[in-house]
Amino acid sequence: MSTVRGARQPTIKEVASRAGVSPMTVSRTLAGGRNVRPDVQQRVMEAVRELGYYRNENARSLRPGQPSGLIGVAITNLANPYYGLFALGVEEVAAEHGRRILLGNTGEDDARERQLVSDFIGRQVDGLILVPTSGDAAHLRPERLGDVPLVLASRRVPGLEVDTVLLDDVGGAYRGTMALLDAGHTRIGFLGNRSSVFTGERRYRGYERAMTERGAPVDPAIIARDQQDVDAASRAARAMFDLAEPPTAIFSANNRNTIGAMREIGRRIREGVPGPRPAVVSFDDFELSELMPVPVTVIDHDARLLGREAATLLFSRLDGTAEARVRTVELPVSIEFP
Amino acid sequence: MSTVRGARQPTIKEVASRAGVSPMTVSRTLAGGRNVRPDVQQRVMEAVRELGYYRNENARSLRPGQPSGLIGVAITNLANPYYGLFALGVEEVAAEHGRRILLGNTGEDDARERQLVSDFIGRQVDGLILVPTSGDAAHLRPERLGDVPLVLASRRVPGLEVDTVLLDDVGGAYRGTMALLDAGHTRIGFLGNRSSVFTGERRYRGYERAMTERGAPVDPAIIARDQQDVDAASRAARAMFDLAEPPTAIFSANNRNTIGAMREIGRRIREGVPGPRPAVVSFDDFELSELMPVPVTVIDHDARLLGREAATLLFSRLDGTAEARVRTVELPVSIEFP
Repeated sequence: MSTVRGARQPTIKEVASRAGVSPMTVSRTLAGGRNVRPDVQQRVMEAVRELGYYRNENARSLRPGQPSGLIGVAITNLANPYYGLFALGVEEVAAEHGRRILLGNTGEDDARERQLVSDFIGRQVDGLILVPTSGDAAHLRPERLGDVPLVLASRRVPGLEVDTVLLDDVGGAYRGTMALLDAGHTRIGFLGNRSSVFTGERRYRGYERAMTERGAPVDPAIIARDQQDVDAASRAARAMFDLAEPPTAIFSANNRNTIGAMREIGRRIREGVPGPRPAVVSFDDFELSELMPVPVTVIDHDARLLGREAATLLFSRLDGTAEARVRTVELPVSIEFP
Repeated sequence: MSTVRGARQPTIKEVASRAGVSPMTVSRTLAGGRNVRPDVQQRVMEAVRELGYYRNENARSLRPGQPSGLIGVAITNLANPYYGLFALGVEEVAAEHGRRILLGNTGEDDARERQLVSDFIGRQVDGLILVPTSGDAAHLRPERLGDVPLVLASRRVPGLEVDTVLLDDVGGAYRGTMALLDAGHTRIGFLGNRSSVFTGERRYRGYERAMTERGAPVDPAIIARDQQDVDAASRAARAMFDLAEPPTAIFSANNRNTIGAMREIGRRIREGVPGPRPAVVSFDDFELSELMPVPVTVIDHDARLLGREAATLLFSRLDGTAEARVRTVELPVSIEFP
C-alpha cells in the first residue's frame, strides 16, 4: 500500500482553517449543510475542492483495512416490485451503518452476475449481498471474492456455504397447497419459475409433498415451471385452462405467475370464455390481491425485511460480532385467506 | 494529485506474468471468468490480490480527470414499483456504458437528500441522477457538486437550470380530467400528493385547468393533496366518499393514490357500503388495473424509459456529445381507456 502510505491527505482541520470556520462546520456542510449559512457552505466547499479533501473518501479505501463504505447488491429482477422493496431494506440498513449500496440487476443471467460480482470486488466493496441467479458457485467462493463477506438472499447456491437468508419456501408452499386440498380441490395446477431457480424448486417441492400426502394426482399436464415474467405466465395459464380437464385450482409459486394467471382469468370472465374460475393460492402477496376476480389466498412475506435481515447478517460479519459458523436464517411466511 | 502521481500501480501484464497466463486471460477472469479454467482463474485472482491489482479500480479515481465509474442515483420512494423500474432503466444504460450505480432512497426527506448527494460527490461519482424531494436547490448548485453533471428526473427544482427529464404531467392530467368531463361527470374528486411535490403541483394544474375550462366547480371538499402512501390515500378516499355530496368520479394523480382509492372502493363494494362507485382516472398505470371493481382510465408512461432517458442525457454530458445549453426532455403519456 506504499501507493498511499506516502500519500499526503489534507485533514478536516486544514479545510476548516482555509475556509475560516470550525471543523464542525465543515462536517455539517459535508453532511448536507443543515444549519450552515449558504455563503459559509460555499466557502467550505471551495476549500474542500482546493485541498482535494473529498478525495479522502476514495483514498481511504486504498489503505489496508480501510473500508470503501460500499456494499455491492446484485438482484435478479428489479422490474419485480418485490425486489424494489428488498433493495430498499438493504439500503436502509446500509445507511444506518453509514454505507452506500452499489446496485446491479442480473436479469437471471449467470454471465452478468459474474461480471457484477467481479466489478464490485474490484471496487473494493466492504461486503456483497446477492440474490443468486442459479447454479454456478465458482465465482462466489471466498478466495474469488478476496474474502469479502457474502450474504445470499432468498436463494442458496449449491455447494456454497455462506450466510444466507431464506424464506420458508417449502413450508409455505406445502401449507398453501394443503389449504386448496382441504377446500376439496384435487386437480391443482402449478405455475412457477424454472426448477433451476432455488425458490422455484423449493416451492414445487412443497406443492408436490402436499399433493402426494393426500394422494392427489401430480399431473404434468397442469404443471408449468418455466415462466419468468407476467406474459409467459398468462400464456401458461391460458393453455392450462383450455385443457379438456382443466385444473379447478392453481398454486402459483411467485407474484409474476400470479399476476399472469389473474390477467388470463380476468380476460376469460370479461369475454365470457367458458372454463374454470379456479381458486388461487399465491406465493408472494401483491397489491390489490383482495380485489381479484377469483378468491386469492396469499402466502405473504416481507421483502423489505428480507433485505434488512440480509444486510444485518452482513454487518454482523463486518463488525466482527457474528459467530464464526455460517448462518442460515429462514424467515417465516404467513397465509392470508381471502 | 501528488498522492497518486507518485503511486506505483501494478499493470495487467505484471499480474499475467505472475500468474503465468496471458493478459487476455487476466481480463477474462476479471470480467467473470468465462472460458477460463477454475484453477487458472484461482491463480489469476491470487496474483491480483498479491499485487493489489484490484486497487487500481479505486486508484484510478484519484487521478485528475479519471472517472470513478460510478453514477449516483437518489430516488424518493423505492417502495413504489414505479421507481424500481426507473432505477432499472438507469442501471441498464449505466451498465451499457460500463458504469455502476450507487443507489440511495431519500423517502421525500430533504435532509436525507442533502446527505446522499454530498456523500455521492465525496465518492467522486461521474454523475448524478436525482428525483428531487422538493424545493431546496442550494445543495444542488454546480459549485456545490464540484461541477459533477446532474440530471433531474420526473421533477424540477425551482431556480435550478440543469438537464431534466419530465413527463407531460399537465397535459396528461388535463386530458384525463377532460375524459371524465366528456363522460358527463362534473363532481370530480382529486387525490394527489403534496403541492410541494413538483408532479403533484403540475398534475393538479392539469386537473384544475380542465375543470375550469368546462365550468365544473373545483370544490376543496373533494380535493385531497397530501397522501404519500396507499393507506393515507385509502383514508382520504373514504372521507370523500362519506360526504353528503360525494364525487361521482376521481382523478388520481399517482399510483399510490389510485391503489388506495381502489382498496376503499373495493371494501365498500364487498361490505355493501352505500355511496358512490366512482369512475377513476389514474395518472400512472399499475398492475391488474384492468381487473378493478370500477372502470379505470390509465394515463400511462414508461418508468423504465424515464430512467433510460435520464441516464442517456447524463452520458451525453459525460461523453461531451451534448450541446452546451441545458436540456429538458418531456416524455409523452398515453391515455388508455378501460
